[in-house]
Amino acid sequence: MMETGKTRAAAQGDREPVGSGSGTPVGEGAGKLWGGRFTKGTAPVVDAFHSSLGFDWRLYREDVRASQAHARMLAQCGVIAHGEAEAICAGLAGIAADIEAGKVQPSGAEDIHTFVERLLTERIGDAAKKLHTARSRNDQVATDTRLWVMNAIDELDRRLRSFQRTLVQLAEDHKDVVMPGYTHLQRAQPILLAHHLLAYFEMFQRDRERLADCRKRTAVSPLGAGALAGVTQPIDRWATARELGFLDVAVNSIDAVSDRDFIIELVAALSLVMMHLSRLCEEVILWCSAEFGFLELDDAYSTGSSIMPQKKNPDIAELARGKTGRVYGHLMGLLTVMKGLPLAYNKDMQEDKEALFDAVDTVLGCLEAVEPMLATAGVRADRMLAATKDGYLNATDLADYLAKKGLPFRDAHAVVGQAVLHAIENGKRLEELPLEVLKGFSPLIEEDVYAALDVRQCVAARRSLGGTALAEVEKGLARAKSLLGAAEK
Amino acid sequence: MMETGKTRAAAQGDREPVGSGSGTPVGEGAGKLWGGRFTKGTAPVVDAFHSSLGFDWRLYREDVRASQAHARMLAQCGVIAHGEAEAICAGLAGIAADIEAGKVQPSGAEDIHTFVERLLTERIGDAAKKLHTARSRNDQVATDTRLWVMNAIDELDRRLRSFQRTLVQLAEDHKDVVMPGYTHLQRAQPILLAHHLLAYFEMFQRDRERLADCRKRTAVSPLGAGALAGVTQPIDRWATARELGFLDVAVNSIDAVSDRDFIIELVAALSLVMMHLSRLCEEVILWCSAEFGFLELDDAYSTGSSIMPQKKNPDIAELARGKTGRVYGHLMGLLTVMKGLPLAYNKDMQEDKEALFDAVDTVLGCLEAVEPMLATAGVRADRMLAATKDGYLNATDLADYLAKKGLPFRDAHAVVGQAVLHAIENGKRLEELPLEVLKGFSPLIEEDVYAALDVRQCVAARRSLGGTALAEVEKGLARAKSLLGAAEK
Amino acid sequence: MMETGKTRAAAQGDREPVGSGSGTPVGEGAGKLWGGRFTKGTAPVVDAFHSSLGFDWRLYREDVRASQAHARMLAQCGVIAHGEAEAICAGLAGIAADIEAGKVQPSGAEDIHTFVERLLTERIGDAAKKLHTARSRNDQVATDTRLWVMNAIDELDRRLRSFQRTLVQLAEDHKDVVMPGYTHLQRAQPILLAHHLLAYFEMFQRDRERLADCRKRTAVSPLGAGALAGVTQPIDRWATARELGFLDVAVNSIDAVSDRDFIIELVAALSLVMMHLSRLCEEVILWCSAEFGFLELDDAYSTGSSIMPQKKNPDIAELARGKTGRVYGHLMGLLTVMKGLPLAYNKDMQEDKEALFDAVDTVLGCLEAVEPMLATAGVRADRMLAATKDGYLNATDLADYLAKKGLPFRDAHAVVGQAVLHAIENGKRLEELPLEVLKGFSPLIEEDVYAALDVRQCVAARRSLGGTALAEVEKGLARAKSLLGAAEK
Amino acid sequence: MMETGKTRAAAQGDREPVGSGSGTPVGEGAGKLWGGRFTKGTAPVVDAFHSSLGFDWRLYREDVRASQAHARMLAQCGVIAHGEAEAICAGLAGIAADIEAGKVQPSGAEDIHTFVERLLTERIGDAAKKLHTARSRNDQVATDTRLWVMNAIDELDRRLRSFQRTLVQLAEDHKDVVMPGYTHLQRAQPILLAHHLLAYFEMFQRDRERLADCRKRTAVSPLGAGALAGVTQPIDRWATARELGFLDVAVNSIDAVSDRDFIIELVAALSLVMMHLSRLCEEVILWCSAEFGFLELDDAYSTGSSIMPQKKNPDIAELARGKTGRVYGHLMGLLTVMKGLPLAYNKDMQEDKEALFDAVDTVLGCLEAVEPMLATAGVRADRMLAATKDGYLNATDLADYLAKKGLPFRDAHAVVGQAVLHAIENGKRLEELPLEVLKGFSPLIEEDVYAALDVRQCVAARRSLGGTALAEVEKGLARAKSLLGAAEK
Repeated sequence: MMETGKTRAAAQGDREPVGSGSGTPVGEGAGKLWGGRFTKGTAPVVDAFHSSLGFDWRLYREDVRASQAHARMLAQCGVIAHGEAEAICAGLAGIAADIEAGKVQPSGAEDIHTFVERLLTERIGDAAKKLHTARSRNDQVATDTRLWVMNAIDELDRRLRSFQRTLVQLAEDHKDVVMPGYTHLQRAQPILLAHHLLAYFEMFQRDRERLADCRKRTAVSPLGAGALAGVTQPIDRWATARELGFLDVAVNSIDAVSDRDFIIELVAALSLVMMHLSRLCEEVILWCSAEFGFLELDDAYSTGSSIMPQKKNPDIAELARGKTGRVYGHLMGLLTVMKGLPLAYNKDMQEDKEALFDAVDTVLGCLEAVEPMLATAGVRADRMLAATKDGYLNATDLADYLAKKGLPFRDAHAVVGQAVLHAIENGKRLEELPLEVLKGFSPLIEEDVYAALDVRQCVAARRSLGGTALAEVEKGLARAKSLLGAAEK
Repeated sequence: MMETGKTRAAAQGDREPVGSGSGTPVGEGAGKLWGGRFTKGTAPVVDAFHSSLGFDWRLYREDVRASQAHARMLAQCGVIAHGEAEAICAGLAGIAADIEAGKVQPSGAEDIHTFVERLLTERIGDAAKKLHTARSRNDQVATDTRLWVMNAIDELDRRLRSFQRTLVQLAEDHKDVVMPGYTHLQRAQPILLAHHLLAYFEMFQRDRERLADCRKRTAVSPLGAGALAGVTQPIDRWATARELGFLDVAVNSIDAVSDRDFIIELVAALSLVMMHLSRLCEEVILWCSAEFGFLELDDAYSTGSSIMPQKKNPDIAELARGKTGRVYGHLMGLLTVMKGLPLAYNKDMQEDKEALFDAVDTVLGCLEAVEPMLATAGVRADRMLAATKDGYLNATDLADYLAKKGLPFRDAHAVVGQAVLHAIENGKRLEELPLEVLKGFSPLIEEDVYAALDVRQCVAARRSLGGTALAEVEKGLARAKSLLGAAEK
Repeated sequence: MMETGKTRAAAQGDREPVGSGSGTPVGEGAGKLWGGRFTKGTAPVVDAFHSSLGFDWRLYREDVRASQAHARMLAQCGVIAHGEAEAICAGLAGIAADIEAGKVQPSGAEDIHTFVERLLTERIGDAAKKLHTARSRNDQVATDTRLWVMNAIDELDRRLRSFQRTLVQLAEDHKDVVMPGYTHLQRAQPILLAHHLLAYFEMFQRDRERLADCRKRTAVSPLGAGALAGVTQPIDRWATARELGFLDVAVNSIDAVSDRDFIIELVAALSLVMMHLSRLCEEVILWCSAEFGFLELDDAYSTGSSIMPQKKNPDIAELARGKTGRVYGHLMGLLTVMKGLPLAYNKDMQEDKEALFDAVDTVLGCLEAVEPMLATAGVRADRMLAATKDGYLNATDLADYLAKKGLPFRDAHAVVGQAVLHAIENGKRLEELPLEVLKGFSPLIEEDVYAALDVRQCVAARRSLGGTALAEVEKGLARAKSLLGAAEK
Repeated sequence: MMETGKTRAAAQGDREPVGSGSGTPVGEGAGKLWGGRFTKGTAPVVDAFHSSLGFDWRLYREDVRASQAHARMLAQCGVIAHGEAEAICAGLAGIAADIEAGKVQPSGAEDIHTFVERLLTERIGDAAKKLHTARSRNDQVATDTRLWVMNAIDELDRRLRSFQRTLVQLAEDHKDVVMPGYTHLQRAQPILLAHHLLAYFEMFQRDRERLADCRKRTAVSPLGAGALAGVTQPIDRWATARELGFLDVAVNSIDAVSDRDFIIELVAALSLVMMHLSRLCEEVILWCSAEFGFLELDDAYSTGSSIMPQKKNPDIAELARGKTGRVYGHLMGLLTVMKGLPLAYNKDMQEDKEALFDAVDTVLGCLEAVEPMLATAGVRADRMLAATKDGYLNATDLADYLAKKGLPFRDAHAVVGQAVLHAIENGKRLEELPLEVLKGFSPLIEEDVYAALDVRQCVAARRSLGGTALAEVEKGLARAKSLLGAAEK
């Protein structure tokens, strides 16, 4: 820090004569859209530090589309000439094509917006300089980002639907496979594998609904909000909004440029997707263990060890589970960035994009890898069924049996608890206990108890809405297919 | 750890003879709903550690309501007798009334569900033991929690609406107050205070929409899902759902008991509420500083210092800003809890409630404290207006002036940058520069420039949809009032 | 908000005549240490919102101790009379005793510091009013909190040490138990259970080191920093620091009152403790599953199900795993609170205490519950050993066998991979393949291969420093005991 | 998922005859170190998903160094020939040089370890295949990462020291500048700017201490732990540890490969660095506002607006404040990744590296940008001093004045509160009130009060250890310089 007086004095010595017209404004040429009031260029460390081009180049399509819509609207409203708008649109189309084709590499500018505007100026000259009329980077970047998010949500929805379809297919293919249902990772009651798989269908269905709700709030156009206060030109904000596919326009210009809720809401929704995926992957990992042995991954979806030749690891499931942390972290990061920021735009908000991009990429990547891993996995139905036999998974059925015969459920529960204890100590299953032993626990027990204790009967008996009985599971499948079908139209 | 053999042997020695009928099952009397298969009671440290009664007593109303609905339905479906259902419902009503009146303190049980069931058994005897038919604590706790959340969202919505109403009133009361709009905490363009306040209205409006969306996904009844697989009795899940105000029933029993999305979605939405509030509070704190001097809090909403007699601190705003961390923390905590949990219920999920309760309490508490603080604050309109005069907030208007005269905006921007630099160096405002000096920067500048540079004119000129011109702000107010009105019907 | 002018006018009408001496200063009696410059009391909602007494009463011991030390020092430095200091110290001792005995309930004040000072004034009169000389609540609260943390760390260290002792005892008791070591939850190589348990010893050892490092940075006295700038009285900061057990004094008064690093560092260290505990608990949960069957919890450390009579759930382990989220959440909350706060004290920082207290309570509670659960668990050594036989855990040993005979390890690895594949397809273990078949994979294989493939030999062969061979594990045990012993002196 | 039987059958059809010798093991050539037991290669989506080469190439120097040390040790221990070790070391040196020079681009392998080993095999043939003797990727990656972190901490320490030096220089250069000290962002007491700057020195000093403590726990060699259980060869772990600069060796092989505490501890420490930086940057932003006007950034360290020509924004400070979220997010992500992972290595842990790298890069980048921004900023000492005059910053001094004359401090505080209120209402400063008016508040007030109320006297009077009086600040500077000097030796 220096005393300010010195700074000014020094600065004046360096400066170009005001209005001399000879000098390029500071900043121009260095890929900046400003600089008039500055007496020197930014330090290289600053350029490196605050440049966002390294990641926001991903917005180039959106930037071009939004600028084209803006230019057309300006012409329609008489702010610029129609010919100028046409030149701008054509120029922008060319730029997009060149970037797409890899002919131009985004570089040498502080952001993608500056980069595109500079290319446009090189291509079409003075008309390009009118593009920034009635627009600030603040509304421009908000517009581009919202367009990107709308598109990302559409892509996420497609991926999730595909994932759901795989779950439904698996459930269909294994409709008769019985496995232990767990609570506390203890065997609890026998269920259908299909029923278990459909639980995940429901989770991803909620995820899709959350994404759709988020999309509603994203599809609100900030374009025309200017720096923060609106603009002085007679523009038509609905015209650009409609052309770009927005469903609404932001009705407060200050909010329009300082709102990043849609990004945080998206990343919160994606955190839930990852949470669901982490639960599924945890189960895949458990099921692939020698101890469970319920699942065998295809060799194409497993990996080995550099030292242990026998290893076949469920790397994909582990990595997807691990990547949960990454998305949670982005959510925490974004919330932290926005905490306590005064209105309206602050540079802190530039930190929104990398987190956004990486969260979307991560979820898409995980879905893309986990889905075929599941689809190609081998189900070991025999092991699943065998596992339902040990662990007294039919104990609740015995209690229900007694309750149906009139014993209050709470008493029935206590009686069965003692029967289970007896069975454990004698190394027997409940159904292996002779009738007289069972009767010793309750005189209500009769010969028909053995039918009630059969594992397949335990499954079939849970006919309540949403239960694991086959008829209910088939309803679930039908509903799932109908939801998937509806989405495809 | 001991070798297992020894454990078993020791256990057998202690145990009551099976089926002797003389012994109270382990756990009974100790406030537990289980124990039959256990050979000894839980250690005191376990009871203390895993008891949730210290916080889940808050669910007692929901627990009673849900149990009443369950009992009525069981009777309607013929699972229990009508008289039993009536006894259960009357008994539960009495329990709720006693807790409400403080006659009974929840204690001595592992959770509120056990506590209520025990009281019921004491009151009405054997019928009480049938209440747990066709129900597990897993679906019971999920039901109670969803009912609580539905109610919490209604209360949050009321509070947010009230807060919005205060914002609208403030905006109405100060419709003509002009203040600097900021970006990067640098004065940017003059705006109406009312416009600034309405930006917050928009944020809270989105918050309310998010809460409403969350409520949709919360109002889905898990009751009847049983432990995880459905139940064996012929129950009517829609009957209980309807009676309890649910809009839908969960269609997969495994998902029904293991889903906590609705809590996380709520706390994510509340994190955004707090983020918005933290921005508002940051501004209140800035505005109350001697440097800004835009706002003076009422003495009733400020606090002092134990050592510095002159201090008048915006404690409420600071504390609300600080409490943002608390809600963010709960969100992270909940996401962590659910990460990687296999299906279905796991005890980890008991950790959902304290975070949920505290997040809701915190947001309600902050809204309740911040709203009257705002409502009673004194606006220093003179200081706000004065602040718009220094800092070249009309520079954009000069650029727009030039652009309207045909100079491409990008060139106009550069010209004005140089004019600003000249003005800074000469200690003048733009409008204090003589016409000939201004013309030196661009020959397009004429006498009418001074009208364009007037602060009130700068505000009035931003007539674009959602801009800060009074007519647009009045539209915003009308829309806001209409939204608030609609909600009240 | 009102226009400020009106506020002032209204205020003047209400106000007591200045200096009249008749009026109690606003705030007094309402449990506040300030109020002179205020014209009315705080609104009830404000009192409720910003009061911290509901949780900071836990600092009463520290507050009393620090005030006693402060008073003694003031007398030694001649700032107050020795008699005054004695009266203050005796009065404070009485207050502490009364709170301890439950005779006084902290209530009716905004914080514990105000509460104690008010009680003191009631007890000893005017001398009490001198206690706040040369001290602000800012340095007072920082001092009390640091004292509390120093004590908490000592208690945490004791608990962790006890936990480590249990791990060591378990390892000693099962020194010969062989189990599968896992990577990717796939059986990898056979290890000693004791070796596995000592891995956790190491984690907790690092935790203790981190806590000790944190304690160094906590034991720095802020007392005497005043509000933020130091004080005008000739105080002796080292005197109070020494009396209170601090190791150093804070050398910058602004930093002294605005630093909360020590709390965040502690909660970060506790997050790692919880992470370690969550890993251990995950394993306990896995090992208690029917599929693994490696461990059986004592009935006193398990719980049951309200519906499924057979269930015996590892609730403690699950709950401790779940509480990891709680501590992580507090860490995130605290970091959020402090982000972007200007110097020095801000009210936001009051949010530090509940997170701190709950994080410490949570970790202590988990350690207290998990330790006896482990200590009483039954190890099923036969199941562990059996599990080492299937899964080709000796494949690395075959590769090492070949490498020792001269085949480059990378080639040996490939050869063994093929042998394993052959064995899988034929449903054999490696050691079950006849020599001629093994020779088919590599002519280097000879009769001595079977010795190398024996599971106990695989364990014994890993004699490298820190390996799982018994001799190395015994060194680990000796080191562990020595570390524990050293800590006890 | 398919029924397993089918998978196996299908697989057998595809497979190369076992031991035919003709086939390249699956995975080889595809950049993998395994594959022998697999019947087909991994799917492309898997390769893309689980490859870490895109980021872990940054470990190439560490990987080469560690492999060289390993090879040398293997030769010393007689596990491989000296000539082989020499070939390996020379080959690795060449590879490092080629990567350094950009002649080789890491690609086409699943990770940097595989990539380097493959290049080595191409260069030196069979000897390369012996490098992986007595080593797994599990200990290798842990070793490389620890080496990288040790180096990163050294670099961070250098940067922080440089930053501290700039703070000290600024403090030296402005030793006589008086400014308001703030609490609650309200002016509290006058302080020296140098004192304020040294508060940040202290924060960064603690950061450096935390990093040093973390380094101790990082510099522990896992090399030789093998996959998880140690190795069967007679290796010397201390030899590699010493050569690589480790201070200790990990004494439990399971812990050695599954411990990521050092990364989390580092990122927690970096979160605190960012928290400190965010506070400093918040102040820079406030001080650069028109309202404060305490600081003027050099044009080279400011940026402009695309629409508002007058804007000069403190972008660097804002961006650094925003990047706090990024580092907090990584901390949350890493904690999430590790939560509940069973021992030992799990693939989830691969997620550690990107977070680690980005956290280190972010902190270094922020320090590099903020330091010169501060160093070149202009201090507006006149504005700072002027700000101390308004706001009754000397009110505490008046209370102390009274307390020194015998009034208990608590009474003095109340009296001064009333005097301040009187002064506010009359638009006067305290020192502008005539003596008789002051005496009206307390007869103890005499002519010498005006000296006590002088701002510079208020500063000078705070002579307590660590206070803001110049003599104390000079001690602080001397201590700071001594700490910086010591570090340089």
